[in-house]
Order: sequence, then structure tokens, then C-alpha cells
Amino acid sequence: MIKPKAISWFYENLPDAQIIEDKFKEIISKNYSLSGFTPLDTPNIERVETLTSKWADDNEIYGIKRLKAEGEEKNDFELWLRFDLTVPLARYVAQYEWELDFPFKRQHIAKVYRWERPQKWRYREFYQADVDIIWNAKLSLFADVEILSTIYNSLKELNFWDFVININNKKLLVWFLESLEVDEIVKTISIIDKKDKVKSIVPMLEELWLKEEQISEILTYINLSEVRTSREILEYFSDINNETLIEWVKELKYVYENLVNLWVDDRFLKINPSISRGLNYYTWTVFETFILWAEELGSISSWGRYENLTSNFSKNSYPWVWGSIGLSRLLSVLNNIWKIELWAKTVSKVLVLNMWEENLTSNLQIVKTLRNLWINTEIYLDSDAKIQKQIKYADNKKIPFVIIQWQDEIKEWVFQLKNLLKWEQKELKIKDIEKKILGILL
Amino acid sequence: MIKPKAISWFYENLPDAQIIEDKFKEIISKNYSLSGFTPLDTPNIERVETLTSKWADDNEIYGIKRLKAEGEEKNDFELWLRFDLTVPLARYVAQYEWELDFPFKRQHIAKVYRWERPQKWRYREFYQADVDIIWNAKLSLFADVEILSTIYNSLKELNFWDFVININNKKLLVWFLESLEVDEIVKTISIIDKKDKVKSIVPMLEELWLKEEQISEILTYINLSEVRTSREILEYFSDINNETLIEWVKELKYVYENLVNLWVDDRFLKINPSISRGLNYYTWTVFETFILWAEELGSISSWGRYENLTSNFSKNSYPWVWGSIGLSRLLSVLNNIWKIELWAKTVSKVLVLNMWEENLTSNLQIVKTLRNLWINTEIYLDSDAKIQKQIKYADNKKIPFVIIQWQDEIKEWVFQLKNLLKWEQKELKIKDIEKKILGILL
Repeated sequence: MIKPKAISWFYENLPDAQIIEDKFKEIISKNYSLSGFTPLDTPNIERVETLTSKWADDNEIYGIKRLKAEGEEKNDFELWLRFDLTVPLARYVAQYEWELDFPFKRQHIAKVYRWERPQKWRYREFYQADVDIIWNAKLSLFADVEILSTIYNSLKELNFWDFVININNKKLLVWFLESLEVDEIVKTISIIDKKDKVKSIVPMLEELWLKEEQISEILTYINLSEVRTSREILEYFSDINNETLIEWVKELKYVYENLVNLWVDDRFLKINPSISRGLNYYTWTVFETFILWAEELGSISSWGRYENLTSNFSKNSYPWVWGSIGLSRLLSVLNNIWKIELWAKTVSKVLVLNMWEENLTSNLQIVKTLRNLWINTEIYLDSDAKIQKQIKYADNKKIPFVIIQWQDEIKEWVFQLKNLLKWEQKELKIKDIEKKILGILL
Repeated sequence: MIKPKAISWFYENLPDAQIIEDKFKEIISKNYSLSGFTPLDTPNIERVETLTSKWADDNEIYGIKRLKAEGEEKNDFELWLRFDLTVPLARYVAQYEWELDFPFKRQHIAKVYRWERPQKWRYREFYQADVDIIWNAKLSLFADVEILSTIYNSLKELNFWDFVININNKKLLVWFLESLEVDEIVKTISIIDKKDKVKSIVPMLEELWLKEEQISEILTYINLSEVRTSREILEYFSDINNETLIEWVKELKYVYENLVNLWVDDRFLKINPSISRGLNYYTWTVFETFILWAEELGSISSWGRYENLTSNFSKNSYPWVWGSIGLSRLLSVLNNIWKIELWAKTVSKVLVLNMWEENLTSNLQIVKTLRNLWINTEIYLDSDAKIQKQIKYADNKKIPFVIIQWQDEIKEWVFQLKNLLKWEQKELKIKDIEKKILGILL
């Protein structure tokens, strides 16, 4: 006998939590499609050459090998599990560059794999929900607006009322540090990026030999988005008389205003000039999204622009804008902190009781009619089970409606429809199912 | 520069084929849900102990290891990629046996991994679409009816008009061989199972030292379903006066008749007493489904019953009935033999042209209104592109509708809606979008 055990840090759901996860996926995917992002899947596995491009952190990667590998195969890992959805996308775009139509807008909601030291809210297999726009030409700033509004629509329909999307044009931050005459800009940015994770970034800045006034200016700058509204920040930068800066602020303003034109409610948006996402390869607008009552979760959704996605694979240049919702982490937090209400354990809406063999044909007619009306319906599988047991099954799984046809009702072509939530009951005629039942069930 | 290349025998789609694959998944999943099979996912990866139960063929399995594995980890594979959806299900049911409600009906449409020698229609990563019923008690014969009718509904809605579901009670075949006094029943069954794959099974039967009359009887038996209708076969067996046989034929008849009660069209059903599925562990009803114009494909959907799913993991006994559609293989055949019509390369239904910066706000209002009506809509990303280029983009991707708002139309709050398929055009008022557009687009 083997002890049944899933792998640690690889999560799986009980049926009620799975229904919530699927609902989340469905809502996100529907919103991605509404903006014209077409679903596209790639294999979970890539060749080593593909993954060992500049993005990879070897430490996090799972290698794959045929168990009965022979000869040379035996030594090295030639295949790896994907650790994100972006590297495979870069490979895909380069591989099919002559068959794809650009701009190429795709969505991908799928699992990725990262070995990480065990820590809260981190899994080793988890879902990401990405949207990407790739072009073989200059990618207009409107692409950023599209990605951002699409992510916003998804989060909005998921009924979070307390998230804030922080947006920034990273060039502002670089300009600011240059104007302060900071030497080690990249290092300083990566310290600023840690500001929400540590008590104070001052000791780290001091280690870089920054002067007291520089540090004080940096702290004021970081605080800007706390003390000013987004429009005030745009004005603040517009007032600084600097030609290049004017151009960049105009870009940020363009993104902000077109988001508002796309009915993004501006209380969910914050221009935050200190957001950097740390990573070097994001060159332009960046965002991070936090849920206010769950800041310990970190950013639940991020976004960035990269000047050339496929530089490792193709001579041609493909600018790329990307946004992503960290689906598994979000769900785990909802289940753990917010205690999301888990309810039904099945997709069934109706259980038809199955009590007398001679009623079976008539019961099946009811089942079939309901399924033809696109109502998820099951019939209890065992006609020997007592009525209490059958109803308890519906009750346990939270199937809202139960249909009983008593033994003698078969002659009169009627049956009883019971609402288990309200404990109401109605008699219906079989020939009236189509007419009457949708109004009751939906 | 790295040559971009996916792994051999790991398939991936271009956008138009992906849309078909997703449509197939959606139709199958919807039909599975209609019968109350709730989606449930498990990790792609399991522990070695879980997979090395009696089902596994080591030869086919991929091992997984952290690339930077240290110490003892370095030597053995502790994790494997799942090669089917059933072994993980058995582990799951045993692990959560006190938290699940039985009968447990689940669906799972997901990828599995098998290393196989390269051959036509076989991939190393492919989708299976499973439905399962598991109970912690006797699982009534009606479970087989439910699985089978659910698979039938899915294939029917996928618009195959030429498939045949062959069903059998495997006990009939065993009884028949026993009555012939065949010694090596298991071996004989596995030869019969090969009947569609080889020219003649006679030489193989001769190798088992079967007598000429025995072989001739076997051939007649195999041919039964060719020369008799399903009802005639049921009568043929009923006429043989044998008490046990009568019981088994009654079971087969029960499945057949209840399928017809669930409106399964009997021209898609064939009672075929020679179907065995070769494998030892299926004990009762079995089926195989063939597409008539693509028999070289082999069975596209199979099904079986197993008396105890979790025997390796739990002291309790869980009978199980299972059905599956081989989604990836089916799709590959459709694309290759049937030349399925690939059409749109995007989910977008409308492209709003984007030509004058001063029209952008008004264009975005149109975009947003359409998205609010659940119409997948995109706006062309580059306002500098010429109108011909923007329309060509819609045409290439087969976006059926294009909206243009000419520069001066903004004042009159009107725009033009063009149907690219019919080359028709209509002028609409912005305030009438909600009223008018659904009727035109849908």
C-alpha cells in the first residue's frame, strides 16, 4: 500500500475550490477575449537552448529526462519545464514569424514551474494569466493602454473593489536619479524597488555612499504618490521645465487619459513615479497592482514593455508589451485571508431522483429534456438508495433543485420540483418542462 | 542566436488551429458538465511512488529533477510527469477520501506525457478528455450508461456523423472462449484485440495451437456484429440456453436500452461481442469508438469499468467507470485527413479603425460600448497606419466587421459598420449601438 500524497508546494483543489478557480479563469479569459486577445497554447516543455536565454535563473528550473534514457541522452537534461510563458512565446514568435499576422495579440492562462524555497503564497506549479501584444514594427503607446485596460476589466469583474494599479514611466525615475547626480542608478532603482518589503531603505542607500540630501530627495520622491493625486503628479512633472521630461510626461498622460476614456475608474489607478519593477529589461511604462487589504501578497498583476522580445531567436526585432495576473497566488490569498465563500461541490443544477425501476424511462425523459435546455442535470445513480440518501447527496453537494416523480405520477405525466434552498415545491407537467422550467431554475 | 524550435512530437498550433482546438475543448467540457461531471484538476507532476503502481510502463515515462539538485536529490528521479489522468485520480480519491462526496463525478481535460517512438498521430504531450464516476459503494450499471451517453453527446455536438460506438460486455467474450474450450483465454483475447490492425489473425491463433474448428468459430463470432443488428445479437445470445449468460446479456441489454432512452440514436451504437480492449483490468462493459472514414486512426474514444480504482492507495474499495476522448489525436486527424476548415485567426468580431488622433476618444467610446455588450472588439493599435493596411489586418485575421468613423462624422455622432464578408456597409448612430448592433453582428 502506498501513502497517497500530492507533491509539497504543488497545490490542488477540492471540488468547491476548483469551481471558484475555474470561474476566475473563465472571467479572466472572457475579458482577455473581449479585447481581442486570442488564446494560444504552447507545450509545457522546451528545449534547453530555448530556456537558457538571458531570462533564466538556473536555480529555479526543473529538468526533464526520459526515465529509460539511453546512451548520450543519459547525461544531460535536454528538456526543461517552462518557468514562465514569455520565453516560450519568444521562441514561438521567432519560429513562426512568417506565418503570424502582426500585431499579434494573444492570451495564455496556463501552468508554469519554478523550484523555490518553500514560502507562503508561493507554489512550484502555478497558473499565470498573461496577455501579450507583439509587433514586427514600432509598437504604439496605445498597446500599453490596451493591456492595462484589459487587466483592469478582469480584476473589476472578479469583484475586487480595493485594488490599485500603480503606473509609471520608468524613464521618469531614471531622469530623476540622473538629475540628483546619483552614480549607481541601476543599484539605486533596485533598492527603491524593495521599499514595500523592508522597514526602511535608508541604510541600503547609505551603503551606496549617497549623500544625505540625495537620500532625502529620494524619500520625498517615493512619497509623491501618497501626497498627490495622479493629475497633480502629472502637473508637478509638467511644471519642471525640461524638454525631454515634457515628452515623457506626455506619454504617461496619454496612457492615463486613454485609460479613463476606456472607462477605467480613476480611483483604481495611481500614477506612482517610484515604481520600477527592478528588472533591467523593462524599458518603459511599468505597473504593479496591489490589493489594499492584502498588501502582504505583493503585486498580484504586473506589466511591462520590452523593446525586442525575440533578440535571442531572430534577426528581426519584435517589440512587446505584456501584462499578467498571478492567478494561483491571488486565489490562495482569497481562500486563506479573505476566506472566500466556497459553496457548490458540483456543476449540477438539478438532481433527478431515481427510485423505482419502472419510472426510469420517464425519469430519463426529464433528464434529457433538461440537458437539451442546457441545464446541468444528473440522475441519482443507484435506484436502490432511499429517498433521504438521495436528497442528502444533493444537499451535501449543494445541488439547488431536486426532481421527484412519485410512482403513481408517471400515469399523469407530472413530477415535483423541489427548491432545496427555499424548501419550496411545485408540481409540473412533463409536457410543460420547456415552457416553465427555465423561468424557475435560472 | 538560437534557432527557435519546439520539441519534436510535442505539437503546438497556429492561431487558427488553436481556435478549433479550444472550440472542441469547450464543446466537450460543456457536454460533460451537462451530465453533472465537475471539472477537477491535479498537478502535472506526481511522486514516483504514486506513478509506479501496476499501471506504469517505465519505458514511456519522463522523470523530473531540479536542475541544481544537491546531495541525494541528485541521483534518483523523485518526480515524474503524469502519463495519464487516472493514476493521479486514484491518488487524489484515496488522499481525500473523507472529504469527497460520493458518487464522485468528475471531468478532466488536460495534458499527459508519454515518451513513444515517433509514429503518425502520436504525440509525446497530448490532451485527453476524461469523465470518471467513482463510488465508495457498489457502482450501479447505470454509471456505464451515463458515461457512454455523455461521450456520445460530445461527439454528436462535434458534428461527426459517421462514428460508431462499439459496446460489449467483456464477460460474453470470455464465456464464448470458455465454451470453445480455449486454454489460453487471455492470450486469445489479446489476439482478437488486434483484428483491425493486422490482415489476418489466423496465423497468430494457430501459434496458440488452436484447432481449425475453434479458429473458424472465433472468426464467425468476430463477424457477428457485421452481419447482425444490435438487437439481433442480443436475441442471438438470449436464445442460447445458459443461466449465467442470460444474466450478462440482460446487463448488456440494460445499457443498450437506457442509452436509447437517453435519446442516443442507435445508428451510432453497435453491440459488438468481440470488443475486448485487450487490457486485463477492465472487467465489465467496454467500448471503442471509430470514425468510419478514418479507421486508420484507431479508437478515438474508449471506456471501461474497474472494480477498485484505489487498490494501491486505500484499504477501502472504490469501483470506477471511466470514459475518454483522445482529443489531440482526433484533432490531428481532422486537420490532416479531413482537412478541417481553418478560418479566423483571432477571437475578435469587430475591428475599430484608428485613423485620426482627434477621433480616438470617440472611437474608444464605441470600443467600450461593444465590449460591454460582450462583443470581442479590438481597435487598430497604430493611428499612423493607412486605412488599407488596417482593413487588410482585419481581412487577414478574418475579423468579420470593421467600424470606421470618418473625421467629420464625429460631430454627427455617427459611424460606418462594414461587413467584410458581404462587403455591405451601414451607417449607425452612436446612441443606437445598443439597440441596433447585436441584431447585425450576431
